Amino acid sequence: MAPHSSAPHDPDAAPSARAESQRERILDAAQRCFIARGFHAATVSDIATEAGISQGLMYRYFDNKRAMILALIERQLQSDQQSMRRNPLSADIVENLLAIHQLWTRGESIAGVDAAIASVALYAEITAEAQRDPVVADVLQRHDRLTTQTVCDWLRQHDLARGAAIDEAGLQRRTLLMRTVVEGLAMRAVRDPDIAPQTVRAMLAGAMAQVLND
Amino acid sequence: MAPHSSAPHDPDAAPSARAESQRERILDAAQRCFIARGFHAATVSDIATEAGISQGLMYRYFDNKRAMILALIERQLQSDQQSMRRNPLSADIVENLLAIHQLWTRGESIAGVDAAIASVALYAEITAEAQRDPVVADVLQRHDRLTTQTVCDWLRQHDLARGAAIDEAGLQRRTLLMRTVVEGLAMRAVRDPDIAPQTVRAMLAGAMAQVLND
Repeated sequence: MAPHSSAPHDPDAAPSARAESQRERILDAAQRCFIARGFHAATVSDIATEAGISQGLMYRYFDNKRAMILALIERQLQSDQQSMRRNPLSADIVENLLAIHQLWTRGESIAGVDAAIASVALYAEITAEAQRDPVVADVLQRHDRLTTQTVCDWLRQHDLARGAAIDEAGLQRRTLLMRTVVEGLAMRAVRDPDIAPQTVRAMLAGAMAQVLND
Repeated sequence: MAPHSSAPHDPDAAPSARAESQRERILDAAQRCFIARGFHAATVSDIATEAGISQGLMYRYFDNKRAMILALIERQLQSDQQSMRRNPLSADIVENLLAIHQLWTRGESIAGVDAAIASVALYAEITAEAQRDPVVADVLQRHDRLTTQTVCDWLRQHDLARGAAIDEAGLQRRTLLMRTVVEGLAMRAVRDPDIAPQTVRAMLAGAMAQVLND
């Protein structure tokens, strides 16, 4: 490691930060285009226009659209992991999921991406693409296992904090229930946005009682 | 009503049956193309080739791709309703859902469409499209409410058969849990196809105990 690597006036730092922000800008543009037009119909040219940069410059960051979708999967994973590490699991989970459900019903992408699914449209698009492209499927499945591990650790911390005995099979079951309910609820938000919030709250209360093992 | 409308040798019957079978053939082809290429990338010409008919003839059945996706939504609804009317809700639901989950993990479309989601890829594609096209969203949401009603009636019949008191708020909650778990499980099947079946069974057993109110 170069001795000046973390110095505040590192001459390499500025270009690298610029590159990172450029890369994020392209990913934001790709996400908007994939949501608006679908992965296959959105062109590299659309994405460059949306990002406000040249196609030539864009190719310095991403070889093709597939590289962008893989980077979007990675970004969601990191966001989910950070969110779970920052916020211990608690009884607030019902109200938190209810608030996220309300954003989903309005078709909003969730700013700061503090949700397991930042955009239902992008989530659905990536799920559909994973069934067409084995490379996307492979990366998605690898990342999915990491997220499952993070959720499982999250539940384990909850059990340890309560002094509960650790039951690995039970943790697997509760992790799967948590993920199934969150992802199913995202689908429900698109397909039945007018559902009564009290029904969602009651369903979540029952399901989360099993997840929390309370 | 014409007096010969249900006679076995009705001269109108043969062409109508042919038209119905032609229409089904086009929908099967559209479904395969939407799954393989995505709704926007699949062209009307691809679908005509896949169905083995001319584009001109195809336009006598469907004005455009959107009309096909709406007909696919309708077909899924009818299949779901028939399936629930034929099969009363029972404790077998856990093993039935587990069997469907196994088909989903292999990316198979489910023949006979005796499943709430015949193809995860098509389900994801339609969900993504509903966020782009308000006409698709409107039809999807209308049909979704009919399916919810059918699931709710299915649970009500289960309660009546056991002589249980009918609790409408509880039925709404259990209906939402049923739909959320089925749809979330479809997503899980694509994203984590290698999950241990015993974990899926244990999760379903817990969730379905709440759905059945047993």
